[in-house]
Amino acid sequence: MQSKISFKNDYSEGAHPNILNLLILTNLDQETGYGEDNLSIKAKSFIKRSINNPDAEIYFVSGGTQANMLVISHLLKPYESVIAADTGHIEVHETGAIENTGHKINCIPNQDGKIAVKGIQAALDYHTDNHMVKPAMVYISQCTEIGSIYSKAELEEISQFCKSNNLLLFVDGARLATALTSSHADLNIEELANLADVFYIGATKNAGLLGEAIVFKNKELAQGFDYYIKQKGALMAKGRILGAQFYALFEDNLFFDLGKHANQMAAKLADAFQSKGYEFSSNPVSNQIFPILPYPIIKELHKKYEFYVWQKLDHDKAVVRLVTSWATPETTIDQFIADLPKAF
Amino acid sequence: MQSKISFKNDYSEGAHPNILNLLILTNLDQETGYGEDNLSIKAKSFIKRSINNPDAEIYFVSGGTQANMLVISHLLKPYESVIAADTGHIEVHETGAIENTGHKINCIPNQDGKIAVKGIQAALDYHTDNHMVKPAMVYISQCTEIGSIYSKAELEEISQFCKSNNLLLFVDGARLATALTSSHADLNIEELANLADVFYIGATKNAGLLGEAIVFKNKELAQGFDYYIKQKGALMAKGRILGAQFYALFEDNLFFDLGKHANQMAAKLADAFQSKGYEFSSNPVSNQIFPILPYPIIKELHKKYEFYVWQKLDHDKAVVRLVTSWATPETTIDQFIADLPKAF
Amino acid sequence: MQSKISFKNDYSEGAHPNILNLLILTNLDQETGYGEDNLSIKAKSFIKRSINNPDAEIYFVSGGTQANMLVISHLLKPYESVIAADTGHIEVHETGAIENTGHKINCIPNQDGKIAVKGIQAALDYHTDNHMVKPAMVYISQCTEIGSIYSKAELEEISQFCKSNNLLLFVDGARLATALTSSHADLNIEELANLADVFYIGATKNAGLLGEAIVFKNKELAQGFDYYIKQKGALMAKGRILGAQFYALFEDNLFFDLGKHANQMAAKLADAFQSKGYEFSSNPVSNQIFPILPYPIIKELHKKYEFYVWQKLDHDKAVVRLVTSWATPETTIDQFIADLPKAF
Amino acid sequence: MQSKISFKNDYSEGAHPNILNLLILTNLDQETGYGEDNLSIKAKSFIKRSINNPDAEIYFVSGGTQANMLVISHLLKPYESVIAADTGHIEVHETGAIENTGHKINCIPNQDGKIAVKGIQAALDYHTDNHMVKPAMVYISQCTEIGSIYSKAELEEISQFCKSNNLLLFVDGARLATALTSSHADLNIEELANLADVFYIGATKNAGLLGEAIVFKNKELAQGFDYYIKQKGALMAKGRILGAQFYALFEDNLFFDLGKHANQMAAKLADAFQSKGYEFSSNPVSNQIFPILPYPIIKELHKKYEFYVWQKLDHDKAVVRLVTSWATPETTIDQFIADLPKAF
Repeated sequence: MQSKISFKNDYSEGAHPNILNLLILTNLDQETGYGEDNLSIKAKSFIKRSINNPDAEIYFVSGGTQANMLVISHLLKPYESVIAADTGHIEVHETGAIENTGHKINCIPNQDGKIAVKGIQAALDYHTDNHMVKPAMVYISQCTEIGSIYSKAELEEISQFCKSNNLLLFVDGARLATALTSSHADLNIEELANLADVFYIGATKNAGLLGEAIVFKNKELAQGFDYYIKQKGALMAKGRILGAQFYALFEDNLFFDLGKHANQMAAKLADAFQSKGYEFSSNPVSNQIFPILPYPIIKELHKKYEFYVWQKLDHDKAVVRLVTSWATPETTIDQFIADLPKAF
Repeated sequence: MQSKISFKNDYSEGAHPNILNLLILTNLDQETGYGEDNLSIKAKSFIKRSINNPDAEIYFVSGGTQANMLVISHLLKPYESVIAADTGHIEVHETGAIENTGHKINCIPNQDGKIAVKGIQAALDYHTDNHMVKPAMVYISQCTEIGSIYSKAELEEISQFCKSNNLLLFVDGARLATALTSSHADLNIEELANLADVFYIGATKNAGLLGEAIVFKNKELAQGFDYYIKQKGALMAKGRILGAQFYALFEDNLFFDLGKHANQMAAKLADAFQSKGYEFSSNPVSNQIFPILPYPIIKELHKKYEFYVWQKLDHDKAVVRLVTSWATPETTIDQFIADLPKAF
Repeated sequence: MQSKISFKNDYSEGAHPNILNLLILTNLDQETGYGEDNLSIKAKSFIKRSINNPDAEIYFVSGGTQANMLVISHLLKPYESVIAADTGHIEVHETGAIENTGHKINCIPNQDGKIAVKGIQAALDYHTDNHMVKPAMVYISQCTEIGSIYSKAELEEISQFCKSNNLLLFVDGARLATALTSSHADLNIEELANLADVFYIGATKNAGLLGEAIVFKNKELAQGFDYYIKQKGALMAKGRILGAQFYALFEDNLFFDLGKHANQMAAKLADAFQSKGYEFSSNPVSNQIFPILPYPIIKELHKKYEFYVWQKLDHDKAVVRLVTSWATPETTIDQFIADLPKAF
Repeated sequence: MQSKISFKNDYSEGAHPNILNLLILTNLDQETGYGEDNLSIKAKSFIKRSINNPDAEIYFVSGGTQANMLVISHLLKPYESVIAADTGHIEVHETGAIENTGHKINCIPNQDGKIAVKGIQAALDYHTDNHMVKPAMVYISQCTEIGSIYSKAELEEISQFCKSNNLLLFVDGARLATALTSSHADLNIEELANLADVFYIGATKNAGLLGEAIVFKNKELAQGFDYYIKQKGALMAKGRILGAQFYALFEDNLFFDLGKHANQMAAKLADAFQSKGYEFSSNPVSNQIFPILPYPIIKELHKKYEFYVWQKLDHDKAVVRLVTSWATPETTIDQFIADLPKAF
């Protein structure tokens, strides 16, 4: 219903046809409610297989903010806090959801959207007594909010530090598909699952109608979570819908294939920007890229394409954000590239 | 995937085909996220037309407990409480969701699942000073949790009392479709919308994949609610999915037609129970019926049908609950009736 | 500054002179803040000696509602609830403080202000799955809100049941002094401390300016509580003031002597009522008594004395509440008795 | 009971004798509880007179963190936030109390412990939509946490900006006495009361045993606050104790006289540091001063005096904090000065 082509985000389209087909196919089956349905049960087994952890406890919820607030407030005591990058989604774009559950976020400076052991250590050092909150968890996003990704070595270092310092490690995987399938990635889902105490797998931004799969490493961490998601209004009566998303995405390799597609489309775009002489505000590695464009070119492109002006740099140019998705057709990319003039 | 036929609830099946078709038809349209999509915008206009109130403010959320906790905690100050029947869903079956947002529920005794002015007045009289909470809202369910419905006169009396006593009236319409289309109903949706300050329209239990439409009477009551649903993790990125449910249900009369079907199937069942000599624990008026059956008959029926044993009455018999839905085929009803022996 | 003599409650007067003297004596000592002062440290050792438990963890807070909300919300997970009598202070007279910390109270019917194993069991039976809260604590008051007291056998039975059912037992001791020193009591503070997981000792209603001493049975239960009382605004900078109350009250037997005095004054009053032909709504056993008086006599007594009309029984008479305190002079009791006419 | 003289803070001693005398004098008066006593009523009238605002609504609570969390959470809706300096007490030293009531703090950089319109404007600009919290209040401390004070002009500018931008202005006056009586101050309490929507007057750090007087500009702002302080466990049964503090401090000029004394003692100390050749990390204007000392001198002084090493500057020297109080004897100051060697 929109006339312009949008690169604003990766949740502009509906769902992958396999998901819709599964919903149609099973539509009149009478299923048990509240996540006890066969689709959900099967989908959880697929995910456990994918991460190679039969002891994992998995819960499906409808969105990322919901997943973040549920996990963080479930695992922390009232006076415990979570350490996050100052660019972290929970800090910036969740309308204070974490604070609303009663917890302080300890912001630390990001480097290319990421945090590292040094910053976490500084946060620990700062909190010295019971007149301050007690940091008990580290929150990172993979991909980060600006499209960068943690390498395996980076994640291992953080994970090891957390273990040594009695901190839980929680990975926000709203864009996990593109993080793991980037050509720059050196980490698979099993390794990530092993390094985190709890993480979630985002379907909303990778071809699902909705849905994030929260994965606790073991039963102890998840204890009581079934009560808690009901209490917080996050338990869907027709849990089958959530189950269907992850069934279709994890029955085979679809989840990763779609992430790879989004990455490839973004990489093709990025290559074009580069070869036409543009620079980036940060290195393009996943399905969000941040080229720097002069205002006249932005204005011209905006006639046919929608995308966000991310940050005004000076009187001449700005950083823009372009996001590709599982559904971005290659023809659209080709068309955009054709419309992109060379940098002068 | 289940072999037995279930009368356990009205959310066992998926969605009405019109909803699925609409999702498919619009699947690759690029839409704005977070409820600003065209489907949601249009669906809201359909609902406003249906209740004949252009000033209404409408928000779609995923489920009933979520709707209840959002509305109640949005409208009450921390020390204000909500008056509800002791059988009310918020009191009994939401894992303390309302209390978890900080509010006390003032329970009053129900009569056939309903409350009346006398009980509300008693609750007001009981709360005398600032060492007690301050009742500021009345919560009722239409249908109630045991399938009964408020008549127009009953609702008018409560509404008038609330206005006179500075209480907000909130109607939980998780099963509004069957409440309004029962052959015993004398109330339409416009009248209900006019009598309540805020209510919601349940799609989950009437042919939607998910979704409750919260309807505030005016902008003042809704002020800030857009922030609040994001903060509580209830704002879906792909709001189009919620929009699609209500678009399909309210584009024409589908919502009410489906409610009527569920009622008719239940009425046919109820007539059969009656004509075969069974009694009911409460008068069957909507799509939940509560016949009283001897244990041997329950055991026999359970071989082919699933339904809840609601309450054990004595050593011989129990109340059972049978629920029909928008999707219950008449042939299934006929088959059940054929399988139901006469009472001895 | 009031002309009438008040029997309205046991916190009408200031503090026992020993407490004031201690404050004066130590006034210009420079002390560490936030409960690390010498008075608090010493007072805690006195209390540990009194309950004969060197492993106890003790915290002083300013009032009863504060103690209740701190203890309950510290020990429960968000979806866990506390079982209490429908006459319990947390249910009736704390402006929803417990719910405001996010927890539901499961009310059970009281018998003479008390609850018993049968009622607790019924509450457990009622809560069957994760759509309901999970009872995890039992709250009782000793004395109860209507002046009755649990016997040792009653408390042992409850304590045993709690242990067997994985429930914490929390005893509100706002009026613990009169509960333990009643002539009807068969329980000492060491026994009580041993039966409860956590309890508190009320100074406010027994000669302190303020102060409740929360006593956790062990370090595990108290873990993190020092952070939590700061977070909830309950940590006083000049903790010495709280320390001084309990230092003076527990240095020797003062706490119990004062409770005994209040009881004796109430007993003398009760005897007079009885011998003059009046009945009671409940058996007078502590420093709150509930005689039944005709309205003309209430009116006459109200000219010189203040006390609450507790409950109107019929057109002729009402239950009144008379409360004595550590400070009630025997001459005042004698005067009241002289002013009390015989029942006709 | 301590052998060293402490300059660690201004709450090391007990209370001014006038307060203790008043407590003793009125000790056996029977008073109404919960702040309805004659001392509290009278004390409130004294404060209203002092600020020349008969419409003010005043509540006494026990401490500063409690006052902050009560006021902020009372006045903000769940998704609204408070803007504060990154050195603000609510941000740094209250164990996440504000977040625990559900609200995010928007930190902005301080300049000498203070914030200004430019920083507030930046915070407003940053928050653009409903995926972010909505700033609705500005919190400042007078004195600030590092002893600096806002001038009248600075406060007027902030106040005017807040009015124009629909922000409430809340002034934390835990150290209001020294802020208003500094020789650098150009602002009186009436002016401050007029510029703030709500502020509090700290007694704890200016000669009270406890107590902060929260002053709302008018009834509208305070509506329901009486319920709320009970709900949050902040309502003391023997409110007379809080009343007595402010009665004694505001009956005449005592509150200001004591603040002035603390300032004068600090100024004398500061002059000595200056004349002996030391520098300060920030300009000494109230009862907290921050001289820079070489480690050997710190070590030497620590033999007789207690004070905090605030910040290590390099291998040779550190900033230390010295705090004087209403009770600091001039002889102590003289002694310290005598013990302070000249800077080399």
